[in-house]
Amino acid sequence: MRKALAVRISAFGPPVETVRCEEIELPDLGPDDVLVQMKAAPINPADINIIEGKYGQLPELPATIGNEGAGVVAEVGSSVTRVKPGDWVRPTGGGVWSSYLVLNEKNVLRLPQGIAPDQAAMMGVNPPTAYRMLHDFVHLKEGDWVVQNAANSAVGRSVIQLSKSLGIKTLNVVRRADLEPELKSLGATAVVTEDCDLRKEIKGITGGTLPRLALNAVGGDSALNIANALATGGTHVTYGAMSKLALKIPNALLIFKDIQFRGFWLTRWWKTATSNDVDTMYDTLARLSITGRLSIPVEKVYPVTEIADAVRHALQGERSGKILIQF
Amino acid sequence: MRKALAVRISAFGPPVETVRCEEIELPDLGPDDVLVQMKAAPINPADINIIEGKYGQLPELPATIGNEGAGVVAEVGSSVTRVKPGDWVRPTGGGVWSSYLVLNEKNVLRLPQGIAPDQAAMMGVNPPTAYRMLHDFVHLKEGDWVVQNAANSAVGRSVIQLSKSLGIKTLNVVRRADLEPELKSLGATAVVTEDCDLRKEIKGITGGTLPRLALNAVGGDSALNIANALATGGTHVTYGAMSKLALKIPNALLIFKDIQFRGFWLTRWWKTATSNDVDTMYDTLARLSITGRLSIPVEKVYPVTEIADAVRHALQGERSGKILIQF
Repeated sequence: MRKALAVRISAFGPPVETVRCEEIELPDLGPDDVLVQMKAAPINPADINIIEGKYGQLPELPATIGNEGAGVVAEVGSSVTRVKPGDWVRPTGGGVWSSYLVLNEKNVLRLPQGIAPDQAAMMGVNPPTAYRMLHDFVHLKEGDWVVQNAANSAVGRSVIQLSKSLGIKTLNVVRRADLEPELKSLGATAVVTEDCDLRKEIKGITGGTLPRLALNAVGGDSALNIANALATGGTHVTYGAMSKLALKIPNALLIFKDIQFRGFWLTRWWKTATSNDVDTMYDTLARLSITGRLSIPVEKVYPVTEIADAVRHALQGERSGKILIQF
Repeated sequence: MRKALAVRISAFGPPVETVRCEEIELPDLGPDDVLVQMKAAPINPADINIIEGKYGQLPELPATIGNEGAGVVAEVGSSVTRVKPGDWVRPTGGGVWSSYLVLNEKNVLRLPQGIAPDQAAMMGVNPPTAYRMLHDFVHLKEGDWVVQNAANSAVGRSVIQLSKSLGIKTLNVVRRADLEPELKSLGATAVVTEDCDLRKEIKGITGGTLPRLALNAVGGDSALNIANALATGGTHVTYGAMSKLALKIPNALLIFKDIQFRGFWLTRWWKTATSNDVDTMYDTLARLSITGRLSIPVEKVYPVTEIADAVRHALQGERSGKILIQF
């Protein structure tokens, strides 16, 4: 019986205290299965929320957790044709924080040539969220503006980089003014701090054009601030709730300014995505990643045996990049 | 010089103190103009909000106010072909609270045969708002549920009656339980009071089906309550703000339940409506009105000279129908 080292929870609760690294037994390799030796996985806000039991879809317990990562194919079943030992792959389901995984070959995606494994490990959640939000709500044209908060997050940085590649201008709201040079080097058009009253300042910042899309990962006052920057008929998309505060929406924004407030959840998108949608998106993301135009910074790498420290670090607000787990 | 008695304001302010009934001089009748002797006009919430200066579009002051009404053609210019003296008509623009109006013939709609003038006077704002909200946001099928608050308002009653004619079921939230028999006699499927927690009770009320459309004229907690009743992917439309409280939207309703929060403003709809849209809608509304399946109750009729009393009465929350002004 083959064994693996996995990050498990047996109850939902405070993340640092709840995660355990433990040995599990792997199932036998069926003819359609591949054995993947996982190499790296990031800790995303969704992983934290699942451990806390505060997410739209929760696993049955006890469970191995983790929503994305990358690894190398170690062995394949007798009928497997899509991948071979030595190929780099990304699992497409959940429960991937494990040194080895036995997966049906349909549930792994082969990585494109030339992509860095750490970047590939982070390609399943944040860049696709940015990509979908820029494509699925408003038909944006070159020169249009998008406004977002949490602009220094992995999604925020992906929004900046993808927008730049599309010729779309970004107004980026951050908590710390010292992030401006870094975000501008990624392609941010403008960077302001949370205390900037966008209702008053927006036209000065953009030269008169009003954004047609607002992307919100914070909630509360910050969500309203970016809504107030929108043009009449604009769309406001919530994909995260870092402040844990509800949105407060003045009626006039709905009735007279015709702002639409919507939500985005990548898990839901996956349920109806066609393979063509998926391929088109990943081709674009991989091309940008390989050519250095899309990248997510890493703050620190922890071995899986130090998962509690890794989670504690991931919970800190002021990071310069993702926390990665190595197996 | 012909004169008329009109309801005017010279500044925005508290409604009862601000409105004045005064004599104005009418312009001469041009070749394309019609002289309309106004007969009746309702006081709508939008009229109140305009007098207060709290509306999405405000007239230049001083101004004659009033958004809808009905009257009789008294005289026509030499080139007028669409109407003749004696025809009942509705003006289509604003500023209609006046005993006589001189209007270009393009700005009057002839009333269909058989429609009651008082009902026709109220046909321009509330029934169209109900009609558009039932048609323009969600593709509703027979048997679908719609949930609404302020169900005893003129829009609310129109929603009930139009839904009934379409085979759509309505869950109606009201402040007073004693309204249930009356609303049910109009066609309401279910009636509950504001203290009913719809998140818990909705399935029991509808037999398991969740509404796909919520219509909100209140804001605050009431707006959230009807949002909590919606099916995943449902749409919540705000068209009024009687409580004057902002919407408070938990992030999970946006991200995980995919609820869309939108607004509706009839003034905006008019700006892009085609004449085909308008004709189709008014044909339906007139047909329902003439056959008694769409009607708005009147609580009291005031002569225009008692406009302050009329406005005071219209500001009372607990009415059994509209306040009409007679000229």
